[in-house]
Amino acid sequence: MLKSAPRRLESYVSGAWRPGAGEGAELLDAATGTAVARIGADGIDRAAALAHAREVGGPALRALTLHQRALMLKEIGLRLMDGKEEFYLENFHTGATRKDGWIDIDGGIGTMLTFASRARREFPNAHVIPEGPVEQLSQDQSFSAQHILTPRPGVAIHINAFNFPVWGMLEKIAPSLIAGMPCVVKPASQTAYLTELVVRRILGMGVLPEGALQLLCGSAGDLLDHVEEADVVTFTGSAATGQKLRVHPTIVARSVPFTMEADSLNCSILGADAGPGTPEFDLFVREAVREMIVKAGQKCTAIRRLIVPEAHADAVSEAISDRLTKTAVGLPDDETARMGALVSRGDRDGVRARIAELQAEAEIVAGNPGEVRVVSGDPDQGAFLNPVLLRCAAPLTARAVHDVEAFGPVATLMSYDAPEEAVALARMGRGSLCSSLFTNDPGTAQAMVAGIAPFHGRVLIGNRASAKSSTGHGSPLAPLVHGGPGRAGGGEEMGGMRGVKHFMMRTAVQGAPHLLTAVTGQWSDGGATDRGTHPFRKSLGELQLGDQLLTEARTITEDDTEHFARFTGDTFYAHMDEAAAQANPFFEGRVAHGYLIVSFAAGLFVWPDPGPVLANYGIDNLRFLTPVYFGDTLQVRLTCKEINPREEAEHGEVRWDCLVANQHGETVAQYDVLTMVAKSWT
Amino acid sequence: MLKSAPRRLESYVSGAWRPGAGEGAELLDAATGTAVARIGADGIDRAAALAHAREVGGPALRALTLHQRALMLKEIGLRLMDGKEEFYLENFHTGATRKDGWIDIDGGIGTMLTFASRARREFPNAHVIPEGPVEQLSQDQSFSAQHILTPRPGVAIHINAFNFPVWGMLEKIAPSLIAGMPCVVKPASQTAYLTELVVRRILGMGVLPEGALQLLCGSAGDLLDHVEEADVVTFTGSAATGQKLRVHPTIVARSVPFTMEADSLNCSILGADAGPGTPEFDLFVREAVREMIVKAGQKCTAIRRLIVPEAHADAVSEAISDRLTKTAVGLPDDETARMGALVSRGDRDGVRARIAELQAEAEIVAGNPGEVRVVSGDPDQGAFLNPVLLRCAAPLTARAVHDVEAFGPVATLMSYDAPEEAVALARMGRGSLCSSLFTNDPGTAQAMVAGIAPFHGRVLIGNRASAKSSTGHGSPLAPLVHGGPGRAGGGEEMGGMRGVKHFMMRTAVQGAPHLLTAVTGQWSDGGATDRGTHPFRKSLGELQLGDQLLTEARTITEDDTEHFARFTGDTFYAHMDEAAAQANPFFEGRVAHGYLIVSFAAGLFVWPDPGPVLANYGIDNLRFLTPVYFGDTLQVRLTCKEINPREEAEHGEVRWDCLVANQHGETVAQYDVLTMVAKSWT
Repeated sequence: MLKSAPRRLESYVSGAWRPGAGEGAELLDAATGTAVARIGADGIDRAAALAHAREVGGPALRALTLHQRALMLKEIGLRLMDGKEEFYLENFHTGATRKDGWIDIDGGIGTMLTFASRARREFPNAHVIPEGPVEQLSQDQSFSAQHILTPRPGVAIHINAFNFPVWGMLEKIAPSLIAGMPCVVKPASQTAYLTELVVRRILGMGVLPEGALQLLCGSAGDLLDHVEEADVVTFTGSAATGQKLRVHPTIVARSVPFTMEADSLNCSILGADAGPGTPEFDLFVREAVREMIVKAGQKCTAIRRLIVPEAHADAVSEAISDRLTKTAVGLPDDETARMGALVSRGDRDGVRARIAELQAEAEIVAGNPGEVRVVSGDPDQGAFLNPVLLRCAAPLTARAVHDVEAFGPVATLMSYDAPEEAVALARMGRGSLCSSLFTNDPGTAQAMVAGIAPFHGRVLIGNRASAKSSTGHGSPLAPLVHGGPGRAGGGEEMGGMRGVKHFMMRTAVQGAPHLLTAVTGQWSDGGATDRGTHPFRKSLGELQLGDQLLTEARTITEDDTEHFARFTGDTFYAHMDEAAAQANPFFEGRVAHGYLIVSFAAGLFVWPDPGPVLANYGIDNLRFLTPVYFGDTLQVRLTCKEINPREEAEHGEVRWDCLVANQHGETVAQYDVLTMVAKSWT
Repeated sequence: MLKSAPRRLESYVSGAWRPGAGEGAELLDAATGTAVARIGADGIDRAAALAHAREVGGPALRALTLHQRALMLKEIGLRLMDGKEEFYLENFHTGATRKDGWIDIDGGIGTMLTFASRARREFPNAHVIPEGPVEQLSQDQSFSAQHILTPRPGVAIHINAFNFPVWGMLEKIAPSLIAGMPCVVKPASQTAYLTELVVRRILGMGVLPEGALQLLCGSAGDLLDHVEEADVVTFTGSAATGQKLRVHPTIVARSVPFTMEADSLNCSILGADAGPGTPEFDLFVREAVREMIVKAGQKCTAIRRLIVPEAHADAVSEAISDRLTKTAVGLPDDETARMGALVSRGDRDGVRARIAELQAEAEIVAGNPGEVRVVSGDPDQGAFLNPVLLRCAAPLTARAVHDVEAFGPVATLMSYDAPEEAVALARMGRGSLCSSLFTNDPGTAQAMVAGIAPFHGRVLIGNRASAKSSTGHGSPLAPLVHGGPGRAGGGEEMGGMRGVKHFMMRTAVQGAPHLLTAVTGQWSDGGATDRGTHPFRKSLGELQLGDQLLTEARTITEDDTEHFARFTGDTFYAHMDEAAAQANPFFEGRVAHGYLIVSFAAGLFVWPDPGPVLANYGIDNLRFLTPVYFGDTLQVRLTCKEINPREEAEHGEVRWDCLVANQHGETVAQYDVLTMVAKSWT
């Protein structure tokens, strides 16, 4: 174990690192009991910190585009990754092994990098995000609407738990900062030294604008008294604390969005098909043990309830007990130890008390909470505890095993007869962050997931096919939602770009199309148009929304269709056989191929000579709306709909509205043509 | 005014209409002061009603598919529309004119019909909604994830306001019922007779399964004491009551989603360009007056603050005052009256008291709250009040005009110099349901909407182009979100199918693709496949997810490309000119047309003979991923991805994953092919 002198943690608020008044409280190393740091935020002006975020950090962030914000996070993430070793050293003080730390440190930085990359792929490089299609509100296209997302012009206050001092911060500040909201992070005191170190490194890079990220090391104090309507508060921690904060008078009076993610009684279910000898049985046992041991079970997503078929319950009990008994517990930096310490001796006392409560309904089948066996370290100084498996004989009438959370290496085994019983038991947790199901049977997967999904934010199905690639029961992933209903707090975080939207306001904007375009950055039908130069001759810099081309007309003949059919091999009966086409409910006779229509359309709209348009990289939302019969004459209207310059390239994406009409003015087909266009062209 | 004997309102709970114990409280006609009905729910077992919804209504609803639920609402909506005249008669008792009633009655039924039709267009005909793309979580495609939406297996409790007894119920039960949640509706007592009548008609149709819709006429009592984790509570009404309910101990302890929509200090802004003589000036004045008069100003979305350029303030004041003074107030069924009564004399007292508060910061420029002038009716019996316009000279330092809501025909005029001031004033409402902006200048629209959007759920831009088609400041629309941050309650309702999702649980499901398919009803790459019969030869009933075709290969030659270019006219340089293609950053030389690739692909995969596949109606998400050079050989893998039988037709939609690969196994293009397929084929 590396020794370091206890240091005074500081808060970074209102533009400076500030220690707070007085000595502060002592924080102890989880495994050795020696002092690591002192923490306290007495005298820190929390209202001023919020005002600083609103007045300095927010405007600076919102002056940047979404891609520019994401690129800042990419740089921060890459540089944190380069310097991560010092975080791993600090991580040992929390009682976590290096493997445990990987989830927190590499996992946290990876989450930030995922947000940075997906935001640039999925959002426009702009300040406003149009969401969903344009809603036409009038027949004559003079009045329509679109939803937009804009950054909430307040502060995102993130109140975090002790168990993931790095990930817990990064998974929250990444979407907030991309959205354009400055953050105030309040880590749980117990492990704040690691959060503080990471914040020091981030701020030291000089990448973020001042006021975008502040840190409060110490108690929240009167922080929430000063929240305003445009702020957001997120909380991760115990349900009891979360419920107290949720009803804070200022949060309620100002309808401040409050996202809560609380520990929950997550379960893992073994399918009836997955008996001893099947790969799924082994995977279940391995996962159950892993979830008890990783971070010494101090994970919000850890499995607390093991729900197994009655027929396999003894076998599961034996297999898990066997592995648990062999689990070496010791100092986090001792490579022979598979499991480190709980975060504090106080936590250990709490877990022992919870186990005692569980014992009213369940009996211990492995482990002895009263006796600590370690391969290294001092059980009196370090918060060590060997894993404990309990077994509940009558789970459907039990209460504590579904409600009392021993936040440590503890789980309760319970059995079911019919699959509906397994679902009922899972639901008795009254809402969890995640659950898992081990089965290789699609029918079991379908029925069980349908039953448990409404009570969970995430459900993992484990089987032989994904044995090697599965990320496991306990791992929230940046692209997937994290959070759960009921007991788990009712919150939702991450979920890819959904997570960014939690920090933005959704507004429906209605008006005449050309005014909407000015607001949304997206041309919509009925909006202003300009039919000057062929738009393919304009560079990205010259193009304007609404630049439009109305092409020559072209008649589609029977010969064209037959020629196309022979050339491509597409001799589908609706194009070739008059009787069969007439028998078809959608056609009155032979019709031209949809692919022929779009091919002719391109022939009508492209500008053939070299120019700024570099490539057609795709098509979106193509719909064939009116059949094209032989002799119909087509004309194309192509309009510049969206212009998206890339930050780090000499080109950008341009989306074109392509409308193909027939001689009656009916829309034959409409779609978005996606092109790459050079920023300049000479 | 039609007279009807006061009737005892009943609650419909636990399968029967029940009057409640005792006499109940008297409800008075707003305009005549005579008794309309008696209301009370003493002795009604509210806990039993919730249990009935959960145990009877919920399972019955969830046994239906999304389209089946939507079709029930379509039938209900059409039949309500047929019988709407009796609702209009009852509507007069609320003080509302026929025109006012149109918003409530036709508007409410129309909202229900919109939900019914869009759900069938936008959702699959299934029990589970997959949301967003499949997330590939492993390189080898053995582990992926998808988000799904499932009905929350609880009750949707809707606590509604007095001012929209029909719309207020229908806009909430429509999305709940489509989602699969049974509803308990608690209307505000004052106008509950109209809600009760509509519920009687709905239940009388026998379309809804028992337990899907219950009505509580009377006080909420202990209703919220019995909410559970899977329930949802929505509230529309005053901020004070909403905040009280939001912190109800059971709601908090069980993290029950609570959606609040409160009245707010909505504003309308006149752009600096929109001076007297412009169409926008006239539109602004007309809208301001209309919003004050409709429903006697008792609308959550009514304009309370008129924010105008200092230069035009006098002109606005005169124009509005002039119109207000001429507004005829009288009995709701008197066709010469433009404005009816407030809902009760108590409400009128309240509005007068609020006006007095506003007078501390603003002076009255039109109307006299102390004196009532009517064209019909008795001002002592009916809750009549002539409209009142105030003007605030120093709005940036005022507080009451941005905070005190006189819920009646009352608005305050205030002026700004710079546009930023207008935005600042709008924001001083601390969050509103909606605002409007009258301008014909795109720059003004862009800057102002960017400034005010984060404080509003909806922003309407009014100008000459949309003068005739605009639906107006005060009208929430089914496709658009309704709700606002801060003072407006922080809720979000409707917004098209977003509104349905508020009553469903979002869950990320992870696992091997073939198990995911069983859960989501959508095939994903890496999932199980079957390469038997050509899938175009299978009817909708025979097709299975994963049915797959691997086609022959075809080489694309220079001749093919030149031939296609000449035939279609698409002689874009990247296909024709080696040097120009090489100069392009994306290509190493001349490439085949994307449209040629998809045309050849169709030639490879179609089954030419008549069969169950009726038409290709479109393509989604086409991306060209690898350039195709002359001599490359393409092969297509076509897989059945989604099967969506229609309820009311002999066919359904089938979505195919189409993957085009080259001879190196690289993906050249991938897209969804959309077809109509017959349910049976012989």
